[in-house]
Amino acid sequence: MDTALSTSPATDAGSDGARWNRGRVGLWLIGARGSVATTAAVGALALGAGRAPATGCTTAGPAMRDVPMPGFDQLVIGGHDVTTTPLPARARSLADTGMLPAELVAAVHDGLVRTDAELRPGYVAGAGRESQGEAVRRLAADILAFRERHLLAHVVVVDVSSTEPLPADRLEFHDDELLARALEDPAASVLPASAIAALAAIESGSAYACFTPSAGMTIPTVRRRAEGRIPFAGQDGKTGETLLRTVLAPMFTARGMRVRSWAGTNLLGGGDGATLADPEAVRSKLASKNRGLNRLLGDDVVAPLHIDNVPDLGDVKTAWDHVSAEGFLGSRITLQTTWSAHDSMLAAPLVLDLARLLSLADATGTTGAVPALGVFFKDPWGSDVHAFADQTTALHAWAAETGMRAATAAPAESASSELRIGAAR
Amino acid sequence: MDTALSTSPATDAGSDGARWNRGRVGLWLIGARGSVATTAAVGALALGAGRAPATGCTTAGPAMRDVPMPGFDQLVIGGHDVTTTPLPARARSLADTGMLPAELVAAVHDGLVRTDAELRPGYVAGAGRESQGEAVRRLAADILAFRERHLLAHVVVVDVSSTEPLPADRLEFHDDELLARALEDPAASVLPASAIAALAAIESGSAYACFTPSAGMTIPTVRRRAEGRIPFAGQDGKTGETLLRTVLAPMFTARGMRVRSWAGTNLLGGGDGATLADPEAVRSKLASKNRGLNRLLGDDVVAPLHIDNVPDLGDVKTAWDHVSAEGFLGSRITLQTTWSAHDSMLAAPLVLDLARLLSLADATGTTGAVPALGVFFKDPWGSDVHAFADQTTALHAWAAETGMRAATAAPAESASSELRIGAAR
Amino acid sequence: MDTALSTSPATDAGSDGARWNRGRVGLWLIGARGSVATTAAVGALALGAGRAPATGCTTAGPAMRDVPMPGFDQLVIGGHDVTTTPLPARARSLADTGMLPAELVAAVHDGLVRTDAELRPGYVAGAGRESQGEAVRRLAADILAFRERHLLAHVVVVDVSSTEPLPADRLEFHDDELLARALEDPAASVLPASAIAALAAIESGSAYACFTPSAGMTIPTVRRRAEGRIPFAGQDGKTGETLLRTVLAPMFTARGMRVRSWAGTNLLGGGDGATLADPEAVRSKLASKNRGLNRLLGDDVVAPLHIDNVPDLGDVKTAWDHVSAEGFLGSRITLQTTWSAHDSMLAAPLVLDLARLLSLADATGTTGAVPALGVFFKDPWGSDVHAFADQTTALHAWAAETGMRAATAAPAESASSELRIGAAR
Amino acid sequence: MDTALSTSPATDAGSDGARWNRGRVGLWLIGARGSVATTAAVGALALGAGRAPATGCTTAGPAMRDVPMPGFDQLVIGGHDVTTTPLPARARSLADTGMLPAELVAAVHDGLVRTDAELRPGYVAGAGRESQGEAVRRLAADILAFRERHLLAHVVVVDVSSTEPLPADRLEFHDDELLARALEDPAASVLPASAIAALAAIESGSAYACFTPSAGMTIPTVRRRAEGRIPFAGQDGKTGETLLRTVLAPMFTARGMRVRSWAGTNLLGGGDGATLADPEAVRSKLASKNRGLNRLLGDDVVAPLHIDNVPDLGDVKTAWDHVSAEGFLGSRITLQTTWSAHDSMLAAPLVLDLARLLSLADATGTTGAVPALGVFFKDPWGSDVHAFADQTTALHAWAAETGMRAATAAPAESASSELRIGAAR
Ligand SMILES: NC(=O)c1ccc[n+]([C@@H]2O[C@H](COP(=O)([O-])OP(=O)(O)OC[C@H]3O[C@@H](n4cnc5c(N)ncnc54)[C@H](O)[C@@H]3O)[C@@H](O)[C@H]2O)c1
Ligand SMILES: NC(=O)c1ccc[n+]([C@@H]2O[C@H](COP(=O)([O-])OP(=O)(O)OC[C@H]3O[C@@H](n4cnc5c(N)ncnc54)[C@H](O)[C@@H]3O)[C@@H](O)[C@H]2O)c1
Ligand SMILES: NC(=O)c1ccc[n+]([C@@H]2O[C@H](COP(=O)([O-])OP(=O)(O)OC[C@H]3O[C@@H](n4cnc5c(N)ncnc54)[C@H](O)[C@@H]3O)[C@@H](O)[C@H]2O)c1
Ligand SMILES: NC(=O)c1ccc[n+]([C@@H]2O[C@H](COP(=O)([O-])OP(=O)(O)OC[C@H]3O[C@@H](n4cnc5c(N)ncnc54)[C@H](O)[C@@H]3O)[C@@H](O)[C@H]2O)c1
Ligand code: NA
Ligand code: NA
Repeated sequence: MDTALSTSPATDAGSDGARWNRGRVGLWLIGARGSVATTAAVGALALGAGRAPATGCTTAGPAMRDVPMPGFDQLVIGGHDVTTTPLPARARSLADTGMLPAELVAAVHDGLVRTDAELRPGYVAGAGRESQGEAVRRLAADILAFRERHLLAHVVVVDVSSTEPLPADRLEFHDDELLARALEDPAASVLPASAIAALAAIESGSAYACFTPSAGMTIPTVRRRAEGRIPFAGQDGKTGETLLRTVLAPMFTARGMRVRSWAGTNLLGGGDGATLADPEAVRSKLASKNRGLNRLLGDDVVAPLHIDNVPDLGDVKTAWDHVSAEGFLGSRITLQTTWSAHDSMLAAPLVLDLARLLSLADATGTTGAVPALGVFFKDPWGSDVHAFADQTTALHAWAAETGMRAATAAPAESASSELRIGAAR
Repeated sequence: MDTALSTSPATDAGSDGARWNRGRVGLWLIGARGSVATTAAVGALALGAGRAPATGCTTAGPAMRDVPMPGFDQLVIGGHDVTTTPLPARARSLADTGMLPAELVAAVHDGLVRTDAELRPGYVAGAGRESQGEAVRRLAADILAFRERHLLAHVVVVDVSSTEPLPADRLEFHDDELLARALEDPAASVLPASAIAALAAIESGSAYACFTPSAGMTIPTVRRRAEGRIPFAGQDGKTGETLLRTVLAPMFTARGMRVRSWAGTNLLGGGDGATLADPEAVRSKLASKNRGLNRLLGDDVVAPLHIDNVPDLGDVKTAWDHVSAEGFLGSRITLQTTWSAHDSMLAAPLVLDLARLLSLADATGTTGAVPALGVFFKDPWGSDVHAFADQTTALHAWAAETGMRAATAAPAESASSELRIGAAR
Repeated sequence: MDTALSTSPATDAGSDGARWNRGRVGLWLIGARGSVATTAAVGALALGAGRAPATGCTTAGPAMRDVPMPGFDQLVIGGHDVTTTPLPARARSLADTGMLPAELVAAVHDGLVRTDAELRPGYVAGAGRESQGEAVRRLAADILAFRERHLLAHVVVVDVSSTEPLPADRLEFHDDELLARALEDPAASVLPASAIAALAAIESGSAYACFTPSAGMTIPTVRRRAEGRIPFAGQDGKTGETLLRTVLAPMFTARGMRVRSWAGTNLLGGGDGATLADPEAVRSKLASKNRGLNRLLGDDVVAPLHIDNVPDLGDVKTAWDHVSAEGFLGSRITLQTTWSAHDSMLAAPLVLDLARLLSLADATGTTGAVPALGVFFKDPWGSDVHAFADQTTALHAWAAETGMRAATAAPAESASSELRIGAAR
Repeated sequence: MDTALSTSPATDAGSDGARWNRGRVGLWLIGARGSVATTAAVGALALGAGRAPATGCTTAGPAMRDVPMPGFDQLVIGGHDVTTTPLPARARSLADTGMLPAELVAAVHDGLVRTDAELRPGYVAGAGRESQGEAVRRLAADILAFRERHLLAHVVVVDVSSTEPLPADRLEFHDDELLARALEDPAASVLPASAIAALAAIESGSAYACFTPSAGMTIPTVRRRAEGRIPFAGQDGKTGETLLRTVLAPMFTARGMRVRSWAGTNLLGGGDGATLADPEAVRSKLASKNRGLNRLLGDDVVAPLHIDNVPDLGDVKTAWDHVSAEGFLGSRITLQTTWSAHDSMLAAPLVLDLARLLSLADATGTTGAVPALGVFFKDPWGSDVHAFADQTTALHAWAAETGMRAATAAPAESASSELRIGAAR
């Protein structure tokens, strides 16, 4: 067989030809050799092969049973990265830390080897002699070749690369003309790598999700190129402490309590821990984490927040929150939460969810920010809703409605990949 | 001035003649000298007088701003209890423990004295020689006299008395005829005190809410007498750990995680702590607390639960929960929560909310269980919804819709504002 | 090679001929196929082979560097159990749960096979037709044969079998004559299995440690047989919550604070969790756990304590404690602790410590309860000291002094096993 | 009667002429209007008057019953501060926050007024035109006048003023000559205020304790002036999280476990919270807090530590610690602690303890750092011992031995204050 990942019979969590009639879908990961990406790849292979239930996936629940989306066995994975550790080796090392089940990694070994063959060198700002415009075209070409190679109706690009320091503002972020000129200047390097990746997604006509807090698609001149062309969603996966906060904060509001302070400390090791030990890199993360809290509770909540790199904890992130609220007649209410989980195990299923849901959006011709996907992000694009229950309601409504439209739309043409590539031009 | 509680100018949280046009409303508390009741009385007086903001009240938030309900200054409090500690003394002792602010208790002293004059002896099963039917009529007469004395358009009875042991089942609970006969037999004592109180509410045509897990209105023959006559809501106030659980559990479900165990321990002292130290009394409480969890997560969640009497903690209840869930590829997620608050300070504002909302229900002629009030209870009557966000949505929808109906309905017939004002002199 | 476990070169944690001159030592485990025992066996093999450092072992620290004790490579393991799961299979299943490192279990596989060959059927009360006296002799013979087979200078019996329900008191527990008679009556079954095991240790002249809260050696007629014959220590390994309590309680006392309540909840699954789910079995455990607290803080501390069986947690025990103390001018101090660890991983190194230290005691002819070993137990025999720091000081002092005596004593005769068996008669 | 505080009959915690034969003792507080100082003053008055038991005092326990020390009713309080809030007002405001019992503050009101009369303006670096030498002499004169006014045998100066930023190093800190010259130069301001206060203690011949992490007495040229003249002890009161850490860390060591990380977060409001919100001021505090941990566990423990200013928590400090250790065969042990208490209520009794114990030291002619008082400090002077249990043992031994010497020494001359003033020159 010539395809990369189609090793499985149809399973519960697998394809359902009757409903999703647009064939296999590409998931192109920026940071494809990282912890989240490797976990997503192992998971897609395991779920696609019916070796594990789809626990942890938002799209696998009963609420979305009737929404037409590609099955887990219909996802084909490729991506960019700037390191060269082979995917199977990375997966094994994640098994050695106790995060991934060793048997599962062994069982999907062949699939990982095939996926590894789909990975291409990413873009490093300042490295090499290509102009940033050339870099965008190189990355886009990788994605288009991947699409053609596997005859994919849709490709969804998800950025799960290392969190970048926030770039200083510059004119090229606001003036389309200036940006266009800078992109073709081999001496200029005005955009961060995350923006180059976002532009490559746009150029290749792929749907796009930003799982990191990096600037990428939030740069106005980048964002303008995306509007009207692709569906996109972001930003910064909502997985642990922030998820919990957007679940809990609305409770205080509904009960008329006044939250006075919400302090938090995050401990983690692993690659992300090391990256965030850099005070520059952590800044964007911290800003992203507190935004929702202030939106939900007001700006006068005192909310000190820390992320500490604690190498011996590995990928297990432990977060302690201390909430102090005022209740009836000034009475004090105190809530402490301690959340502890393998961070990448929380993130990976959401990456698969995004691939499925953005395929659906793409299949119905949706473009622009998809506010209903805000439930997946700390900093939801196109939406001010942070309350998790409200976001869940919005997601279900959107999925039902969009699914209905997709079901009644014509199936993808057999030469769809060709057509789409044309459309992406 | 000769009225009981009208000591205040209209405040934000106070009356709004333009919208609520049915005058003052009675709040009749079963267990009126208890910790929750005393706190509710102090709070109603303080809020009515504009001495404290309505923090902790569900009905005071912006979502219900336009719903016509009696102001806090329009609540007149009376009730039954079986002890005789004067309300002002009880309030002072709650201030001494650090729960109630001492200045506030001092400031509302006169109001407490007036309220104390509205309290009447309750019913103790087995004590005295009255038949249970006579007891029902005596209690109902107390409520009717209170209503007439203050020319109240509506009275809401709220049971905040001590949690009873669950009674053994008996034929009189199912057969109306048998019950009717037993009620008139001075030698028989078939109903628990909570049912006598519920029947008195029904007899007096008052709305009724059950803030305890006691059997009262859940006895089929009692419940049948309420249907079609009064609006009612229950059961067992959802204030601390259980509130938190019904906020958190839906998060796991929405994210496709599988909760395996949810263990809990509650520590508290005070009157409620002492009552629940009795293994018989605690049984109904524990059953009530776990019901929602199983409804939300399924019956195979392992959920050991304890309530310990720890006298030195007084009314501060501290609850520790340990949740263990399975996520992506079998990965473990652990969440611990520690909640700590003065229990009565959480309960009292909800009692006031119930008085306001059941007045509204009564004003629109609603009878039977009001499912939309399920948000206030561990064990919601007339509803299977336990998820707090969904309950909040349902409450807001019901309040908006019922408020609309109330606003367009004629003002109370039997007690025109003229008559009522005269009577209040 | 004819010996069971001597697979390793001398290591740091290994033998040191210059100091310990009495050769290899037997560790005979009651409950030898259980979780603690299997972990101890894997650990002894791994440490003996220099495959793992002696982390978690009390005797491996710098404070005891100069005390002559058998090296980990000088321990030979055997034991009794009533199940038949082969030790290598049990170890593998403990690796599958993530508790034991899989590579380590694989690396010591041959040693486990050899150890498995040293295991013999234990005693089950009421099963079979042997009198209890015959059972004692059978078990003692197993131990003596083990000693001869391996030419061991000393054998230490450690009871790590399932916690028993506490037996009802009876005359045979107090009257030596009555017990002797009952032991020879095939129809009588007066002693619990833990006592039969203790008597077998005594009969075989082995040192003995009781790691469980079972009645065994605390029965007066059993204990009298041990006095003057063997060194022994107990009872109920102090590993998690109780360890923490005896570390923390003295802090409050030293600072003049008055602890008012100390509430605790333990969650665990695994074999021990299932055993303790039995309300009978858990009673002895709970009593044992609270004894130290009351000894340290007085009897008026309110100390509710729970152990819940939560299967999905496996052998990871999580304990939450909530301490409330009164400080200066009646001020409140609150401390919460959450302890989480693989229970057997805490217990197993102490079992090895006890083997080493009781060998030392035996080598110096010590008999009776050894109070200085109280640091290992929730309920220390021969001592009222529960404060962990004081116990540690006492252990160090005893080990230094006894070590000195052992070093100056004559080495064990080459035919020592013969001599000792004589002594055991 | 003409004395300031002798309002009480002898109580248990009061004077015992038979043992302490040197009369009343002065406690001179630097920062005398602060939270800790005010609490200490209220406490000394309450304990001296027998209005409260000596809960929270290290010296009141049974272990020190026979050590001759001044009774709480023999302490006379004075001090320096740079604010002017009257002590009774400060005490009332601490009662309003719920920290001090309001009745107690009312009961000792007269004593607070008398104490307030003993307070003098402190030294503010850079303010005024006096040289630093003049400032030292002014402050010393205040202390000497206080001693004479009350005919005190001993005065103990305790620095409980605001934590200072750490000063940059300079030559005057090392060269006695240079310092002497700078002190007399009105244009120079080389020493921080804490050092001026320490020099005033030395000049006045008073014993001295440093309850803050400020540089004061640690400056070599300052310290050299103290040696051989006065007994002194420091530094930075060990009251909450750090106390707990030095209790817990030795447990891990004794059990052979290897602590890998120990992360901490402190939340507090109040005056100290505001001070420590300054990143400069907090630096010395953080350094001081982590020193003990590294001493106990080695330098490779990863120990991120935060102090956050959370105003709504007031003086209640809440500290969360997360400890991760490696046990047997590499197994993970996790311990979390949450400590919550009114910080000043922990500190104040220790200030009284230091007054009593340094009086005793002074009474036996002790000079230099008193290592046995290290138990009270995060950063013990003259000692490397941080383990709390070992420190407690050392304190008890020193107190017993010094007490014995004091008891056998001649009682203080009636004109002792005169003599001492001479000695202080
Ligand atoms: N729960 C979660 O794990 C979670 C939640 C929200 C956001 N995130 C974000 O997801 C991202 C990935 O996390 P991770 O734990 O996998 O981190 P990781 O360090 O394991 O992986 C990041 C990968 O990105 C690659 N990379 C770096 N620069 C690149 C570039 N210019 N182009 C292509 N690849 C590049 C790295 O080589 C690495 O393989 C982080 O930004 C993190 O903040 C994770
Ligand atoms: N957060 C909360 O406080 C909360 C939440 C849910 C439910 N509840 C329930 O509210 C109830 C009241 O709690 P509390 O803390 O005020 O307890 P409490 O013990 O302070 O008060 C109970 C009062 O009921 C009175 N009483 C007892 N039997 C009576 C009878 N037959 N008729 C009339 N009065 C009677 C008692 O005399 C007492 O004054 C309890 O059942 C409790 O379980 C409280
Ligand atoms: N941290 C700890 O793990 C810890 C601490 C203190 C005490 N303990 C005690 O150690 C004991 C063992 O714990 P575990 O986790 O290994 O339990 P487990 O259930 O895994 O093992 C107990 C073993 O004892 C065997 N057994 C039962 N009855 C027996 C008999 N009559 N004779 C011989 N063997 C018998 C069982 O077959 C089983 O193999 C328990 O009593 C437990 O309470 C453990
Ligand atoms: N548990 C504890 O409370 C604890 C533990 C260890 C150390 N400490 C230390 O004790 C000190 C006092 O804490 P607090 O809570 O009372 O703080 P606070 O802010 O309430 O009081 C400090 C007082 O010092 C005064 N002051 C400032 N500069 C001065 C100067 N140059 N001379 C004289 N007085 C001066 C201030 O005016 C204020 O009245 C702090 O340094 C704190 O770090 C407290
Ligand atoms: Na947004
Ligand atoms: Na004992």
